[in-house]
Amino acid sequence: MYICFHAVFVNGKVCKDPKLVTADDFFRSGLNKPGNTSNQLGSIVTAVNVNNLPGLNTLGISLARIDFARHGLNPPHTHPRGTEVLVVLKGRLYVGFVLSNPGPNMKNKLFTKILNPGDVFVFPEGLIHFQLNVGKTNAIAFAGLSSQNAGVITVANAVFGSDPPRGKD
Amino acid sequence: MYICFHAVFVNGKVCKDPKLVTADDFFRSGLNKPGNTSNQLGSIVTAVNVNNLPGLNTLGISLARIDFARHGLNPPHTHPRGTEVLVVLKGRLYVGFVLSNPGPNMKNKLFTKILNPGDVFVFPEGLIHFQLNVGKTNAIAFAGLSSQNAGVITVANAVFGSDPPRGKD
Amino acid sequence: MYICFHAVFVNGKVCKDPKLVTADDFFRSGLNKPGNTSNQLGSIVTAVNVNNLPGLNTLGISLARIDFARHGLNPPHTHPRGTEVLVVLKGRLYVGFVLSNPGPNMKNKLFTKILNPGDVFVFPEGLIHFQLNVGKTNAIAFAGLSSQNAGVITVANAVFGSDPPRGKD
Amino acid sequence: MYICFHAVFVNGKVCKDPKLVTADDFFRSGLNKPGNTSNQLGSIVTAVNVNNLPGLNTLGISLARIDFARHGLNPPHTHPRGTEVLVVLKGRLYVGFVLSNPGPNMKNKLFTKILNPGDVFVFPEGLIHFQLNVGKTNAIAFAGLSSQNAGVITVANAVFGSDPPRGKD
Amino acid sequence: MYICFHAVFVNGKVCKDPKLVTADDFFRSGLNKPGNTSNQLGSIVTAVNVNNLPGLNTLGISLARIDFARHGLNPPHTHPRGTEVLVVLKGRLYVGFVLSNPGPNMKNKLFTKILNPGDVFVFPEGLIHFQLNVGKTNAIAFAGLSSQNAGVITVANAVFGSDPPRGKD
Amino acid sequence: MYICFHAVFVNGKVCKDPKLVTADDFFRSGLNKPGNTSNQLGSIVTAVNVNNLPGLNTLGISLARIDFARHGLNPPHTHPRGTEVLVVLKGRLYVGFVLSNPGPNMKNKLFTKILNPGDVFVFPEGLIHFQLNVGKTNAIAFAGLSSQNAGVITVANAVFGSDPPRGKD
Repeated sequence: MYICFHAVFVNGKVCKDPKLVTADDFFRSGLNKPGNTSNQLGSIVTAVNVNNLPGLNTLGISLARIDFARHGLNPPHTHPRGTEVLVVLKGRLYVGFVLSNPGPNMKNKLFTKILNPGDVFVFPEGLIHFQLNVGKTNAIAFAGLSSQNAGVITVANAVFGSDPPRGKD
Repeated sequence: MYICFHAVFVNGKVCKDPKLVTADDFFRSGLNKPGNTSNQLGSIVTAVNVNNLPGLNTLGISLARIDFARHGLNPPHTHPRGTEVLVVLKGRLYVGFVLSNPGPNMKNKLFTKILNPGDVFVFPEGLIHFQLNVGKTNAIAFAGLSSQNAGVITVANAVFGSDPPRGKD
Repeated sequence: MYICFHAVFVNGKVCKDPKLVTADDFFRSGLNKPGNTSNQLGSIVTAVNVNNLPGLNTLGISLARIDFARHGLNPPHTHPRGTEVLVVLKGRLYVGFVLSNPGPNMKNKLFTKILNPGDVFVFPEGLIHFQLNVGKTNAIAFAGLSSQNAGVITVANAVFGSDPPRGKD
Repeated sequence: MYICFHAVFVNGKVCKDPKLVTADDFFRSGLNKPGNTSNQLGSIVTAVNVNNLPGLNTLGISLARIDFARHGLNPPHTHPRGTEVLVVLKGRLYVGFVLSNPGPNMKNKLFTKILNPGDVFVFPEGLIHFQLNVGKTNAIAFAGLSSQNAGVITVANAVFGSDPPRGKD
Repeated sequence: MYICFHAVFVNGKVCKDPKLVTADDFFRSGLNKPGNTSNQLGSIVTAVNVNNLPGLNTLGISLARIDFARHGLNPPHTHPRGTEVLVVLKGRLYVGFVLSNPGPNMKNKLFTKILNPGDVFVFPEGLIHFQLNVGKTNAIAFAGLSSQNAGVITVANAVFGSDPPRGKD
Repeated sequence: MYICFHAVFVNGKVCKDPKLVTADDFFRSGLNKPGNTSNQLGSIVTAVNVNNLPGLNTLGISLARIDFARHGLNPPHTHPRGTEVLVVLKGRLYVGFVLSNPGPNMKNKLFTKILNPGDVFVFPEGLIHFQLNVGKTNAIAFAGLSSQNAGVITVANAVFGSDPPRGKD
């Protein structure tokens, strides 16, 4: 059941009874553990959002840890409902995002940067972005997202690997 | 200069002096004219938003007309800052959008529908979607967008044809 | 049951279980059919909003088709929770809206325009506005509204024909 | 110049330099003085909003004092950008608002109430409402509005007395 | 049960069935009665918000009456979800708020003002503020708040008198 | 100059000309460096927000690094315009926040927790909260905040050490 600070207060129906709310409703552990990057892309996102931390409900923010194996890629994706601010803890990432279409017959502008530990980068709401480990070790980053449930759409999956496949209905 | 209903009123600097505002600030013509679909994709979007209709500023809505040649495709794209509601005026469109990633090792769910004249379809904020003319004639649709400047990112351009190309910095 | 992208996710209570959501939740047909304008005013609005298209819930946009007989009038009304952007498909409309009271002993400023097919006009949130068919044929317009449930208040009904009538309690 | 808590901070251009902000930017006097009700309607609104109290900018609230002569009427009007909460300080008011159109051939529902000192009533955003002094003395009320610039549209002025008059362009 | 203008409409579950809504859902009495100031601080707040006036739900505004005995203090507190606009009805108040931390080794800027009847003062969202009766009589003020449920945190209670006490877990 | 995704686009006045925007507008370095905790409290916050990272403008999120010496305290404070989500990187923190006043003669509820590396805790918008290093080493945490400019008010400074001091005007 969810915690309601801003929205409709309906004890026992939508929102948890305020008298029963405890500190544990605002708590979640586990972001110290490296995610398992043994997959095709060599990266994994561990998200802490309203789906696993109910106290975030209506508060407009969530967190994620991103682990990268060497050469690991967090492939082009968007967060349809949030901006991401990323800080690198370890390693060296090549990151970027693509601006909205500028106009007919114009190319999309790509903004990229090499990030080292302590570097912060902003991926504005809804824009396609990626992070690639270009360092000689694994890499770790933390990200804040401006929604309790920002969502994520991996472009390649969405376009080439959706279920049911495109072209069949 | 922009019209300000909600935001900071700063005559002559950011917002147009209310005394100088006229009906023409809320007007734009031309959506009766078919867009030119003689391009690779066979589709063209004619947008009416805050960039060409200043009265829309801060009001959270805009419009577009979409023309499709036979087999024309409005290719997979997102509007990073808005939901789209589309109504078909002429022709037959195969449309769809892809939900956010459901979880590890799960495929993205694709929602599709064949639309005929008078049919309305919703493409929620930030989700990748497309429209394909599957009828025997050209096709026309109108769309409302829930932002004065929703933006558009065509996935293929953004991923494969950006400027500078990905991989160079 | 409603679709929830932004708000509290409570499967089976307020929001539809995401696993049960289908493309039909984002679909509605019928806007190709002329509304019946055989009424005193000679106009009729066919609205597509969260009340008949549940997928619009929380997404901040809706659509309407407006039909006008010759001399048909969509009488002065407001949308208490939304801005309207109108595009004319057929016919010739005289449209306008009235600005907020400018000050004591000052008249309200009226902004009007004659619209032809393809013309777009903005009626900002909450302002009283109207559309009158001044052409020689019936007229058709489509409108986008910046709310999933913008509401409508027809001024004459509200002031002169409300239930119970004003003056009785 | 305006105070900016939430929005773009641009010293000396749109927002006042924070170093130059003083307590007087958040202050306004005069609501103890009865407004002059010697007009046709026998009522007068004294508003305190972002136009005369710059510290309210971006903060989403404003105040008003409303004075009524005997039989004084604050005639049917809407606030296009805000809800009003009214409290009666003196006298006896008959107040009401009209709900959105319920459907074709249905009458608008009118909600009314007689208010005495200390009574509070809510007029939801954008709905047409009025207050009439039905007591034996003058009347005074205070109102909070959920916008720094809620606007007001007096229906009769807007429909019958606008400038230019309706019907001329 | 709550009234829903903007949010999810779920008859009989979260929102009251619109057909059953009456004028009384928008009404509350009692703000003419002085609150009981016979407490340590000599002040008392009588709030009218969504918790006791359901029609305020989702509308973003509420009201309060504040009574002060001689020397009465409404001690330093914040409203975590709303701006307050206060108007003095009777007496003489010394009021103030403290701005956000300006920077390392800098003192917080305190904005204060003496208020007399009819004076209006703004306490921006989330800032610590207080009101002290410095006049020779009791004092009365009304306040509008930019939330249906702004909340209040009295600093001294929160820091020194919380339950369980700080330092025990 | 600021980046504008959502708001008024006014090249060269309020918003940076989109053609001149570069990746560096979305970048800031330095969060790898420990802040200097040689102060009375033994803690220091290094914030990355719209004041030093212009690309965050209008995007509703910011970041901070918090360093604690042994026994270091980030003393009771609020963020008037944002929720904080904190993750511990190193050390052991005793953290807590105080709920809004529950009612007359009731104590404020204090929610506390001991956090170890990888633990996440939510401090909801506007509530007074603190973090205390109770481990045997220094401690490091990162925090996301749901505003590009959440502000911070340290309670003790605000109440006891403001400038000018309370009691003088």
